[in-house]
Amino acid sequence: MQNTRAKNYTEWYQEVVQAADLAENSPVRGCMVIKPWGNGIWERLKSLLDRRIRETGHENCYFPLFVPLSFFEKEAAHIDGFAKEMALVTHTRLRQVEGKLKLEGELEEPLVVRPTSETIIADSFARWIQSYRDLPVLVNQWANVVRWELRPRLFLRTTEFLWQEGHTAHATSQEAMEETRRMLEVYRELAEGPMALPVITGEKTEGERFPGAVNTYCIEAMMQDGKALQAGTSHYLGQAFSKASGIRFQNREGALEHAYTTSWGVSTRLIGALIMAHGDDDGLRLPPALAPSQVVIVPIIREEKDQAPVMEYCDRLAARLSEKTALGEGLRVKVDRRDRKSQDKRWDWIKKGAPLLVEAGPRDMEKGEVAWAGRLDLKAKRFSKVDAFVEEAAAELERIQAELFRQARALRDSSIRADIRDLAGLKEHFGRKAEFLGNGAPGFARAWWCGDESSLAPLDELGVTIRCVPFDQPGGGGACVLTGRPADRQVVFGRSY
Amino acid sequence: MQNTRAKNYTEWYQEVVQAADLAENSPVRGCMVIKPWGNGIWERLKSLLDRRIRETGHENCYFPLFVPLSFFEKEAAHIDGFAKEMALVTHTRLRQVEGKLKLEGELEEPLVVRPTSETIIADSFARWIQSYRDLPVLVNQWANVVRWELRPRLFLRTTEFLWQEGHTAHATSQEAMEETRRMLEVYRELAEGPMALPVITGEKTEGERFPGAVNTYCIEAMMQDGKALQAGTSHYLGQAFSKASGIRFQNREGALEHAYTTSWGVSTRLIGALIMAHGDDDGLRLPPALAPSQVVIVPIIREEKDQAPVMEYCDRLAARLSEKTALGEGLRVKVDRRDRKSQDKRWDWIKKGAPLLVEAGPRDMEKGEVAWAGRLDLKAKRFSKVDAFVEEAAAELERIQAELFRQARALRDSSIRADIRDLAGLKEHFGRKAEFLGNGAPGFARAWWCGDESSLAPLDELGVTIRCVPFDQPGGGGACVLTGRPADRQVVFGRSY
Repeated sequence: MQNTRAKNYTEWYQEVVQAADLAENSPVRGCMVIKPWGNGIWERLKSLLDRRIRETGHENCYFPLFVPLSFFEKEAAHIDGFAKEMALVTHTRLRQVEGKLKLEGELEEPLVVRPTSETIIADSFARWIQSYRDLPVLVNQWANVVRWELRPRLFLRTTEFLWQEGHTAHATSQEAMEETRRMLEVYRELAEGPMALPVITGEKTEGERFPGAVNTYCIEAMMQDGKALQAGTSHYLGQAFSKASGIRFQNREGALEHAYTTSWGVSTRLIGALIMAHGDDDGLRLPPALAPSQVVIVPIIREEKDQAPVMEYCDRLAARLSEKTALGEGLRVKVDRRDRKSQDKRWDWIKKGAPLLVEAGPRDMEKGEVAWAGRLDLKAKRFSKVDAFVEEAAAELERIQAELFRQARALRDSSIRADIRDLAGLKEHFGRKAEFLGNGAPGFARAWWCGDESSLAPLDELGVTIRCVPFDQPGGGGACVLTGRPADRQVVFGRSY
Repeated sequence: MQNTRAKNYTEWYQEVVQAADLAENSPVRGCMVIKPWGNGIWERLKSLLDRRIRETGHENCYFPLFVPLSFFEKEAAHIDGFAKEMALVTHTRLRQVEGKLKLEGELEEPLVVRPTSETIIADSFARWIQSYRDLPVLVNQWANVVRWELRPRLFLRTTEFLWQEGHTAHATSQEAMEETRRMLEVYRELAEGPMALPVITGEKTEGERFPGAVNTYCIEAMMQDGKALQAGTSHYLGQAFSKASGIRFQNREGALEHAYTTSWGVSTRLIGALIMAHGDDDGLRLPPALAPSQVVIVPIIREEKDQAPVMEYCDRLAARLSEKTALGEGLRVKVDRRDRKSQDKRWDWIKKGAPLLVEAGPRDMEKGEVAWAGRLDLKAKRFSKVDAFVEEAAAELERIQAELFRQARALRDSSIRADIRDLAGLKEHFGRKAEFLGNGAPGFARAWWCGDESSLAPLDELGVTIRCVPFDQPGGGGACVLTGRPADRQVVFGRSY
């Protein structure tokens, strides 16, 4: 690693993505190639979240990549929100004319490559739902979406990204609202559990809502540069999309009503959050729950004659470890068999953030030992008898999982100012230029706010927005930090990704 | 079900897709909505195949949805093959001008929505590969692809479909060829194992190859209307894509060489194959290995007082069954709790093809019994003590799995003519009009062929092609069925989907 977080946080981030071999830019601007280690992390996230989505009663479906442009026009706020970032398909074939390719088969109506699927799914819901007996409809899809991005950044802002989008329809407003909050809670638990990422749960203010939503709820995390990263959102859509698409049902009394819908999603952006919340100056540090390999064994082989017995020693260790359980799943163990220097292999896995690193060579073998270190404390190289290590590894992984969360929460909690009383104070706080919390970069500010959207204008030049109105409120009230008027809720201010 | 296979096979197929609630047409012509039961089958296929792809040493990645048009131009046969069915993105935003939407942000170079990913992946390979030490590169992706389809049919031919595409690069031609054949064998085992679908493995003739491939290998299955369905292909690409994209490596001797590449894929089309190979006049019949629910329990409740005890009886049965193992995995059991008549529920699951159907009401409960039937023999309703059923269910599922394969193979084997000696014979065989094998529709014909592509012209009007040159050859030779000239290999003729 050339960069440190303190020296240049932005370049440090890019370097971790590269050093950990997570992803790379593709020749199509804004689209990324997700490499095996990055994809492995996404598959872990997928598998853990998919289980939670099923356990809350949802079924997976798959809806079309293309959405007729007219579908977006049905909901005014929705088209306004996405019009500036839509990939549009206009032709369906090519022909060679005098050695040059000519576009042909022009479509009567352009197709939008889905930036999100509310409208195309509402179209299906309108067919599926006739009676209250058909409700609720609870579906989810894992898909790629496209939002044209002018300033792309791997994982954080990409033109194409992978995500899950849940869509549900309900007979009552209350039930839909409960669903919206239930899925936000699923996201909170995913973040604070497997991702070891502390988040603030709350509601978005009007100006920050999803285009077309009545309410948007979010989980907001703090990165090590003090910026906020919106890690997941859950939207209560009321009857807006139902009315636009005609999702109607006959209620128990025989009258026709419009259904109440919700949508909620998280994306490959979460991998960006993991990097920025947990990485250090040696590279990535992965929470064991998400590491594609939790224990990596590097065989130390200097002479040809050691090859076979050392590999066997390592394989046997891997087999024994694989029978153990940590964090509710079988251990994921890898023996690095590549034709590379062992020192280079060790550094590869440090940069990739594998939680436990084991080395075993002929001398270890003779003593029945292994040398090992945890990614959180690389200097503490330890030697253990194989039996002892096999017994200890799972507990060590669980300790690392907890410790990553503890570190991230300690940093986050110590970087939220709660003592700012006026605009001058906000300006002073967010006027600081440092890029890394260790250098004194500004974190969040939590303060009373009266709810007047126009009062936020002075924050534009600071690049600061309200990240959310936290659910967790002290009660009572205070003077609005921007207007001085009475306010009955606190909000969290911050810069965001 | 309104249609039978014998009456109208095509309409029967569409009706099964609808009756089993697998998928529906979307408002975007050619794009489908895959509903929970259809998606569940795809997820089963995915999970079983993904495991096999990993076990053969491949890692999953994700490559961009969009491919620059110029990438396709690099390989002449490749662009020719796909030019007529490409979705082209030309604009990236919209603006409201006098109440109308105007396309803006025109791209300098149009982007192709991937119909396949050889060229965009070759671009990454060219960056990843420098030395023989970097080889082989063995990757796979699960993705959506788009090939504009003028005559779409759910699962069989859709504009957007889901698939897996493996892409590999090797230091030698021999190694690449071994990989091509290895993955074909993985597909064969997937088809004949979990899918219970007998297939012919072989090589495509020149005219049927993948655009840009040196050799294409395939698994070909026979549907109940006697038509062939290409269920999976594996391509040896030689150095064509390496040369077009500059995938070069320094070999052990220090010289620069172009790598040898392969690609291989199967798609949601396999769900079409399952329907057409195994369905009957009551709907779908699912191989237990692929059924999202293998045992479905329908509670029979006529009076309110029975509700709680019968549900508990069913849930307890489900819990006990879930602890059992069939076909190498834990049993997947569902209690149908919907607010519907039990008779309607039963028919739903018959149409969906659930392998084992159980009914339990108050009287069964008193006797400690269940009533059950296998999907392959609905008339044989049996009554068993709960303990006996719990012990028997797994074996019953394995019997159904084997029986579906046996039935499909018997039908296929009895529908391959091996006695046709000339064009007149082929015309007579394929001239028959019936749509369903039970009505005497033509199946395949296996005959000697000399290899002259021009000899195939008379088959055009019959809609007949060579499906493959089977690996399994009798040896020796015979007179070509089309030219009478000496031929040293037999081929399989058929109509295809």
